[in-house]
Amino acid sequence: MIELDFSKSADGLLPAIVQDYATGEVLMLAYINALAWEKSLETGKAHYWSRSRQKLWLKGESSGHIQKIHDILVDCDADTVVYVVEQLGGAACHTGHRSCFYRVVDGDRLQVKDTPVFDPAEVYGH
Amino acid sequence: MIELDFSKSADGLLPAIVQDYATGEVLMLAYINALAWEKSLETGKAHYWSRSRQKLWLKGESSGHIQKIHDILVDCDADTVVYVVEQLGGAACHTGHRSCFYRVVDGDRLQVKDTPVFDPAEVYGH
Repeated sequence: MIELDFSKSADGLLPAIVQDYATGEVLMLAYINALAWEKSLETGKAHYWSRSRQKLWLKGESSGHIQKIHDILVDCDADTVVYVVEQLGGAACHTGHRSCFYRVVDGDRLQVKDTPVFDPAEVYGH
Repeated sequence: MIELDFSKSADGLLPAIVQDYATGEVLMLAYINALAWEKSLETGKAHYWSRSRQKLWLKGESSGHIQKIHDILVDCDADTVVYVVEQLGGAACHTGHRSCFYRVVDGDRLQVKDTPVFDPAEVYGH
């Protein structure tokens, strides 16, 4: 298994940038620990460590919108990765937007740059 | 000024993903604190907080290879940003590669996927 340098952060978590395999759009950023890294490599489905729930998180486990990993890039210091993925369901963000980065800085305001792909209430049932 | 949620990490640092404005390639990831964020917004040049040197870091201050910010995207939780930049000098990585993510997972190996744009010894003089 490819070794990452989990010692680089105090909490043992490293950032994983998620990029759309077809468009190159940055979809989200989440964190991985050694277990999430292992599961991602093993299964080809993006796994993270949920900081809020403090548990292993298979992205899409509740929505069904999993991320199929096409490629994984590793940076020069082996402390950040890029998951190049196919996002099932069309949206990576819990708000229903395709990307979590759906707002752009416009002077002192944030401007929303696209419309949601799905209604979160329907997908998550709350 | 746009507020980010610096309370989300124990050390007050948030990840900034850097993406090439022309190609969409992910070039690097670095960290920002409130000061680096303020300087980036103010000057339009990417500033970070250097974790190794524990100081404000204007990317390109020694190499001259600054990053001109074209757009800044903010995520749903306001705890991660994307700097969409024009990378002067053609390479973001201290190794001379265009992107820090120049290696791709290939089974149990990392395969280098491109050649350096510059010779680090010439640019950094060491």
